[in-house]
Amino acid sequence: MTSTAPPAPTSTAADAADSKVSYVDVAIIGAGPAGCMALDVLSRYADQGLTVRCFDKRSAKLDNGQADGLNSRTLEIFENLGFIEKVQKEGSPMSEINFWNPDPATGRLTRTAKIPDTIPGLSRFQQTILHQTRVETHLLDDAKLHTKGRFSPERSMLPETLDLDEASANDPDAYPITLTVRHLSEEQSNPSAFKGETNGTRSGLFRSSLLSAAEEEKLYDTEGSAVVETVKAKYLVGCDGAHSWTRRQLGIRMIGDQTNRVWGVLDMVPLTNFPDIRMRCAVHSANSGSVMVIPQPEGLVRLYIQLPIQVKQGEYLDRSQITPESIMSTARKILHPYTLETDHIEWYTGYHIGQRMTESFGRANRIFLAGDACHTHSPKAGQGMNTSMQDTWNLCWKLASVLTGSAKPDLLRTYATEREVVAKTLIDFDTKFSKLFSGKPAAEADVEKDGVDLKEFKDVFATSHYFSAGMSISYGESSVASAQSKQQLAPKLVVGQRFFSAQVVSQASATADQLTTRTPFTGAWRVFVFPGDVSRTAEMERLRKLSAYLDSPESVVSKYTPSSRKRWDIIDVVTIHCAERTAVELYDFPQPSIFHPHKYDSVFVDGPSHYHGDGKAYEAYGISKEEGAIVVVRPDQYVALIAGLGDTDVLDAFFGEFMLPAPDGGYPASKVRTVAPPDWSQVAHQEIAKTLAVPEFDAA
Amino acid sequence: MTSTAPPAPTSTAADAADSKVSYVDVAIIGAGPAGCMALDVLSRYADQGLTVRCFDKRSAKLDNGQADGLNSRTLEIFENLGFIEKVQKEGSPMSEINFWNPDPATGRLTRTAKIPDTIPGLSRFQQTILHQTRVETHLLDDAKLHTKGRFSPERSMLPETLDLDEASANDPDAYPITLTVRHLSEEQSNPSAFKGETNGTRSGLFRSSLLSAAEEEKLYDTEGSAVVETVKAKYLVGCDGAHSWTRRQLGIRMIGDQTNRVWGVLDMVPLTNFPDIRMRCAVHSANSGSVMVIPQPEGLVRLYIQLPIQVKQGEYLDRSQITPESIMSTARKILHPYTLETDHIEWYTGYHIGQRMTESFGRANRIFLAGDACHTHSPKAGQGMNTSMQDTWNLCWKLASVLTGSAKPDLLRTYATEREVVAKTLIDFDTKFSKLFSGKPAAEADVEKDGVDLKEFKDVFATSHYFSAGMSISYGESSVASAQSKQQLAPKLVVGQRFFSAQVVSQASATADQLTTRTPFTGAWRVFVFPGDVSRTAEMERLRKLSAYLDSPESVVSKYTPSSRKRWDIIDVVTIHCAERTAVELYDFPQPSIFHPHKYDSVFVDGPSHYHGDGKAYEAYGISKEEGAIVVVRPDQYVALIAGLGDTDVLDAFFGEFMLPAPDGGYPASKVRTVAPPDWSQVAHQEIAKTLAVPEFDAA
Ligand SMILES: Cc1cc2nc3c(=O)[nH]c(=O)nc-3n(C[C@H](O)[C@H](O)[C@H](O)COP(=O)(O)OP(=O)(O)OC[C@H]3O[C@@H](n4cnc5c(N)ncnc54)[C@H](O)[C@@H]3O)c2cc1C
Ligand SMILES: Cc1cc2nc3c(=O)[nH]c(=O)nc-3n(C[C@H](O)[C@H](O)[C@H](O)COP(=O)(O)OP(=O)(O)OC[C@H]3O[C@@H](n4cnc5c(N)ncnc54)[C@H](O)[C@@H]3O)c2cc1C
Repeated sequence: MTSTAPPAPTSTAADAADSKVSYVDVAIIGAGPAGCMALDVLSRYADQGLTVRCFDKRSAKLDNGQADGLNSRTLEIFENLGFIEKVQKEGSPMSEINFWNPDPATGRLTRTAKIPDTIPGLSRFQQTILHQTRVETHLLDDAKLHTKGRFSPERSMLPETLDLDEASANDPDAYPITLTVRHLSEEQSNPSAFKGETNGTRSGLFRSSLLSAAEEEKLYDTEGSAVVETVKAKYLVGCDGAHSWTRRQLGIRMIGDQTNRVWGVLDMVPLTNFPDIRMRCAVHSANSGSVMVIPQPEGLVRLYIQLPIQVKQGEYLDRSQITPESIMSTARKILHPYTLETDHIEWYTGYHIGQRMTESFGRANRIFLAGDACHTHSPKAGQGMNTSMQDTWNLCWKLASVLTGSAKPDLLRTYATEREVVAKTLIDFDTKFSKLFSGKPAAEADVEKDGVDLKEFKDVFATSHYFSAGMSISYGESSVASAQSKQQLAPKLVVGQRFFSAQVVSQASATADQLTTRTPFTGAWRVFVFPGDVSRTAEMERLRKLSAYLDSPESVVSKYTPSSRKRWDIIDVVTIHCAERTAVELYDFPQPSIFHPHKYDSVFVDGPSHYHGDGKAYEAYGISKEEGAIVVVRPDQYVALIAGLGDTDVLDAFFGEFMLPAPDGGYPASKVRTVAPPDWSQVAHQEIAKTLAVPEFDAA
Repeated sequence: MTSTAPPAPTSTAADAADSKVSYVDVAIIGAGPAGCMALDVLSRYADQGLTVRCFDKRSAKLDNGQADGLNSRTLEIFENLGFIEKVQKEGSPMSEINFWNPDPATGRLTRTAKIPDTIPGLSRFQQTILHQTRVETHLLDDAKLHTKGRFSPERSMLPETLDLDEASANDPDAYPITLTVRHLSEEQSNPSAFKGETNGTRSGLFRSSLLSAAEEEKLYDTEGSAVVETVKAKYLVGCDGAHSWTRRQLGIRMIGDQTNRVWGVLDMVPLTNFPDIRMRCAVHSANSGSVMVIPQPEGLVRLYIQLPIQVKQGEYLDRSQITPESIMSTARKILHPYTLETDHIEWYTGYHIGQRMTESFGRANRIFLAGDACHTHSPKAGQGMNTSMQDTWNLCWKLASVLTGSAKPDLLRTYATEREVVAKTLIDFDTKFSKLFSGKPAAEADVEKDGVDLKEFKDVFATSHYFSAGMSISYGESSVASAQSKQQLAPKLVVGQRFFSAQVVSQASATADQLTTRTPFTGAWRVFVFPGDVSRTAEMERLRKLSAYLDSPESVVSKYTPSSRKRWDIIDVVTIHCAERTAVELYDFPQPSIFHPHKYDSVFVDGPSHYHGDGKAYEAYGISKEEGAIVVVRPDQYVALIAGLGDTDVLDAFFGEFMLPAPDGGYPASKVRTVAPPDWSQVAHQEIAKTLAVPEFDAA
């Protein structure tokens, strides 16, 4: 993955003298969920020469514990990336949340409510539990797959200095970032503190918020590790977690509160008569505290438990108080009279509850912070890993578009504007959610004081579905979430929100499939054309007009696509009509911008299928079959623009704002080898032959 | 994979003198679809010490061409084996068959009918196109996964002699088979004739039926390959294809006819205006012959075309007449006026149509033939690869059951009785199907003579769905398809036919899933218990009675399961009740035979789910909610026995006929650590605390 880029214009004589200087488009610090997602997204541009290096100070990736909840939106992204089936196969889907509370009369533990894990219909994907280590592995495997193994984190690499030459930040050819990195030995990058394992139980205490940045730093002894490498980068993404070194180098502060509530987490194989041990449960006991139960794959169960431990403000905890035994014994008290035994505890840790957010998401549009480096909160709402991956999911297609020359650098400003709001909402949500969880059940009258209204608790859970599933994200107006949209043409697809799937039928193969499955992440923008019933002359005429525009050398497709790429690589036009499938033929569709020969995933039908019913896509999106619509979807699957079928000027203006024309003059439609419809005029009347051309054997 | 088994009692002094003698439970000859499936099924028993070796004379596995059609039943088996999602991801599902015929008035090509590829609802899986090489790879990857890489074909190994000591065939400890194998060099096992590749087009002519066994044998020059190894085996499976060496060693003949019809097959990337190029099509032209179109993954399309070439009876064809150009030019004539161009032809071959079947499926219950070694026919019905894999799917769990000591050797006789009927049906079907395809369209009046009635053609296609999808297989009565069944208790699950899936909801997790997904192949028998509405006392009582039997030391579970295994490894009891899910608790179910703690896939509900509607399993199977039923399903997913809930004597008799008690005395229920229901009598009234146990920070 080392770049062989020529010395950048900004390189100085001093650089040149140093033999260990390398040049790279993007440097990533940290290979947690945010860093792995960054690497995976960028891997899709490796064939265009994009160079990336990712450094992690640890010698090996996580092997258990940490985050385990994947929300519906993350699963949609994994579908987009093309490996959802692996995650579904390994993960445990969550189906139901069960609430257990003390009976008001007797104080005895009773199941007071059951609700679906998320609102049915919110997403095609049920939220799923899978350990962070497996999630990271799938992302990294995918990045390797797309780069023949070249994009992979470099471990045992501790960054030492970070410099940004702000003067050259506006020069697109500059490498304004200088990073030095120290190669650690296996021993140094795997501090003995991490290896704590007793009877097969691994401790996660040294990766938790109970450790200060300074304490963590001290673990990495760099003595004797002489090799220090200089890396010159165009961009840098700091994915180095809550104690982010990158953030501290930039002098950016975290803002927010830390409570003194201490929680323990433990993954184990239970033997219990608690009947909901394979459900997500929120259990509030009468006076022994509360536990959250999360069933994991392979028979494991995670417990989150508030521990009877105090920390003084500004101080760090004596971590030795947190042991698997202390967590288990508290759990037993809460679950009484249900029994809870175990022969195997896999992992445990402890953490503070605190909600903090960074002042800024980066510097000079060249260095960006992502993931826990910008926002930390309690893990119980299961949002950290999801939000972290979604940060770099948002950032990296933008980075790649700029680096490959198809978008203006200003596009990168939308990263902070879009993700800051998400982080803020998350912090607010978590503050509320954690407080409810940490509190104790209280009779209604006492709620005002300091108890928790259990009805409110359940309601917050239920109404927060939208948020927790990752569905409430709505990016504000910007160059890539257009205010020029005619929202009324597709009222259920909201500009700034994620594009959701509907079932469609392939015109070419009659196969029913999800539209999102057929339009995976490729880095391309998707222009979904809904032309209506094209078996009617007017509708087909309207589509031909649009196609004439798209085929013209001035269209956004022709202009922004370099002729060295496939014509659908930058802007991919996908048509979903609602005529009877059999009332039109593939060659009725205008070529090549609407139907590109060899690209059968160009034309789909909203209608009935042989095996999977009718997807009713127009209805699902609220698109009128008469009026139709054009829906422009970003590479990260958020709706960017809704326009009318005739609004080619709107398309021009939209893409013109942030795109750059292909330097080679673009890819005119005339360069595509198309196919003429069959010529029936040349066909004479044919006699149907009465004998076989090839004689049969004589059976005798 | 080399066995380190002690010299078998039958080994002679001569054997002992030979240093290259190894002992193995099963030797497999040939690693085509049949051999790969055999290896995969047997791999699941490797942890019980089963040893297997598989020899293939070729140096490498197939890299393109050959079979490409997976029928629904095969896909169900892949689901059972646990890798269906990989096959679905790579393969092209088939959705519709289109018929193109000459218009009776003008002779012009017209689309005359469209039908779904198979009857919707026949199976959960749509038939799928995926190259044989990918199918073999998935089977072998799976076998490796289950054996840490140990079970894998040994290539460049040419068997030389085969001896069967029939005298010791009845001794379970004997190794009555002696096989000698020659190690070939890379050069020798990859004859130059195979390497024919012109402009990226590979020829499959040397793997086709156009080559005689003698011609093929001549290709393998063994000169100088000194190393000859002796392998002593308990069993041998000949999966060595149409020219089976194993079959010839045993002197078993193939019986049947060969026609003089010659077909060409070609895989290519088309550029065409034929609108159905991504559909399965049967195109009969007026007087240029017929073509079958099969869309493949990755933009490839396969054409099957009858060539205007004759062969004299008893002679082999001059293969040089078959070229990609001759196939393409014939295709163009048939499809006229639609155009057909290509820049890339991937592979082509030719074949005779002939239907032949072996006289016998093996010898002495020790050597078995499977796949093309027992039956050959035309490829167009897409049955060869499917039937070949299904042969060893039927055989190998039986072999493993005998070898691991859980079944009597007589069980193996059911292989031939069951699969002979399948082969016979296939041969008959193919005779009819190929004739229809090879003939020419004819006016109704002329059909009698030698034409093809196109209506009949379409009807055969439509009515053969059941057969082609692999759904019509119905094994006759035997020890493992019991005549004692009360078929009326589950009329839609037919004894001898494949068990089909229904959606159920997990009692433990509320997750809806397919019953077959939750009961993958493990080598275990499945006893599906349908106890009815267990929230009613009588029904729960009935279940408790059954469970008391199953828990007893005399039950089939206790008796046939060695105590070294999991208690559900030999006979896995799975309960599907139809009470409201919330009306019963997990610990209401009797332990451990009905609900085994830690095994959450024991108890399911037929009822509504949060995200996937209601599976209505009782209705799907025709089981009465009052009467209930027990359905015993074989390891290969065929229904073996249907009994009443009280018919424990029938269960005893059924398993008693072919099973052998565990030598260690079995696995009594008393050895299982169970969990008592919660003891509410010990729970006192609890005050709900009004203050928090852990004080909050003072915000000031
Ligand atoms: C117990 C627990 C349960 C959780 N449960 C969930 C959940 O269910 N769902 C959910 O979405 N989130 C959950 N989270 C939160 C989640 O783990 C984090 O939000 C997520 O890991 C953040 O991802 P990241 O990539 O930003 O940072 P991290 O995962 O912290 O990764 C940072 C990486 O950077 C590396 N690094 C750090 N400093 C340096 C440096 N100086 N140089 C080089 N490399 C460096 C580290 O080695 C690490 O690999 C949970 C967290 C915990 C502790
Ligand atoms: C053009 C074409 C299309 C087809 N399409 C379909 C289809 O769509 N669907 C379908 O189901 N079937 C189809 N078939 C049929 C299918 O390919 C065969 O039925 C299937 O491959 C048979 O599997 P097998 O394992 O029994 O034998 P094979 O696939 O022939 O495998 C035999 C193996 O044994 C090895 N071998 C042979 N002799 C020896 C020896 N002496 N020693 C050691 N090894 C030996 C060979 O190297 C080979 O690897 C098609 C066949 C052709 C030619």
